[in-house]
Amino acid sequence: MTDPKLHFWFDFASTYSYLSAMRIESLATKADIEIVWEPFLLGPIFAAQGWTDSPFNIYAAKGRYMWRDLERRCAVLGLPFQRPKQFPQHSLRAARLGLALRGTPQLATFCRAVFSAQFAHGGNISESELLHTCLSSAGANSDLADKADNPDIKAALRRQGDRARALGLFGAPSFTIGPELFWGDDRLEDAIAFAAQISDANKV
Amino acid sequence: MTDPKLHFWFDFASTYSYLSAMRIESLATKADIEIVWEPFLLGPIFAAQGWTDSPFNIYAAKGRYMWRDLERRCAVLGLPFQRPKQFPQHSLRAARLGLALRGTPQLATFCRAVFSAQFAHGGNISESELLHTCLSSAGANSDLADKADNPDIKAALRRQGDRARALGLFGAPSFTIGPELFWGDDRLEDAIAFAAQISDANKV
Repeated sequence: MTDPKLHFWFDFASTYSYLSAMRIESLATKADIEIVWEPFLLGPIFAAQGWTDSPFNIYAAKGRYMWRDLERRCAVLGLPFQRPKQFPQHSLRAARLGLALRGTPQLATFCRAVFSAQFAHGGNISESELLHTCLSSAGANSDLADKADNPDIKAALRRQGDRARALGLFGAPSFTIGPELFWGDDRLEDAIAFAAQISDANKV
Repeated sequence: MTDPKLHFWFDFASTYSYLSAMRIESLATKADIEIVWEPFLLGPIFAAQGWTDSPFNIYAAKGRYMWRDLERRCAVLGLPFQRPKQFPQHSLRAARLGLALRGTPQLATFCRAVFSAQFAHGGNISESELLHTCLSSAGANSDLADKADNPDIKAALRRQGDRARALGLFGAPSFTIGPELFWGDDRLEDAIAFAAQISDANKV
């Protein structure tokens, strides 16, 4: 019996992950599906593919297209958009905070706050002050900011990388249900439908 | 006034171009949009990005995912699918034949026949016999096969490459309306909607 939970894999620096982060809860609620937010780092995954920067910076035509596409998709989806000055941003600290919040109801709100700060308001998510504001707005204890530096959280983030590789992830956002992988915000609806199917089959 | 025609850029060897080739006419008819079929070669575009093979072969995890994704998308869209033994296939001759058919009503039918032969039936589109069958099934004169070798057609294919680069194309399928670029079968609906908007604006 496959677990019908939909695992949402994202890097806080990933542009298209912003779209999914803002859309996923309402789609999941409609389909009666549970979401597991899975922050991870794309850097090591890209490095294994020979990339030391975002492919959107390495391949100029693709990068130019991505920013125009993102702007258009935000308009279609009714999401605010402001291109941040720096791309990609350092997402290590945000990812650690996300893992420190694992299993709490504040996690999803914190993630949306970080994505909005960056892609709706053009902020820099490597700044401590910005992250503190995101924690507060999620109703999370700001002592958490210190917890992000403890060895357990650092180890948890490395484990996320191992799990991502084992699942065959090569980009973000990605969605997994058991071993089934969907890549890109464009597959969010298909992934939800797949999880709903598994969930229905389990009920029979 | 932007020309509201939707230019559909594809390489006959491109997997996701198969999906668009099979879907585009019915979507365009519904939206009352004219499609211009634009065969071109991805090879030189990829080479300029430093790739001497399909990125789906260079990046193994991405390649594995693509085949599974294609299979799933074909199921969702109701399209037959059979993975060809060789990928990518040599699409030079098919592209030249496509250009020889430019401006004729047989072009779209020929293109769909080539894509189906490859991705619905697992055939090899570099084979002359297969291409002859595609020409006949499109109701095109099979003398055309000889015309594909003439210098005008070869020059026309090189010009397609120049146009593709000038438009900022980096993959296929791509869709352009004036300078506006949409990439990937997942953007076909958005591209059609954009073209329809331009068309309506021109009527006012």
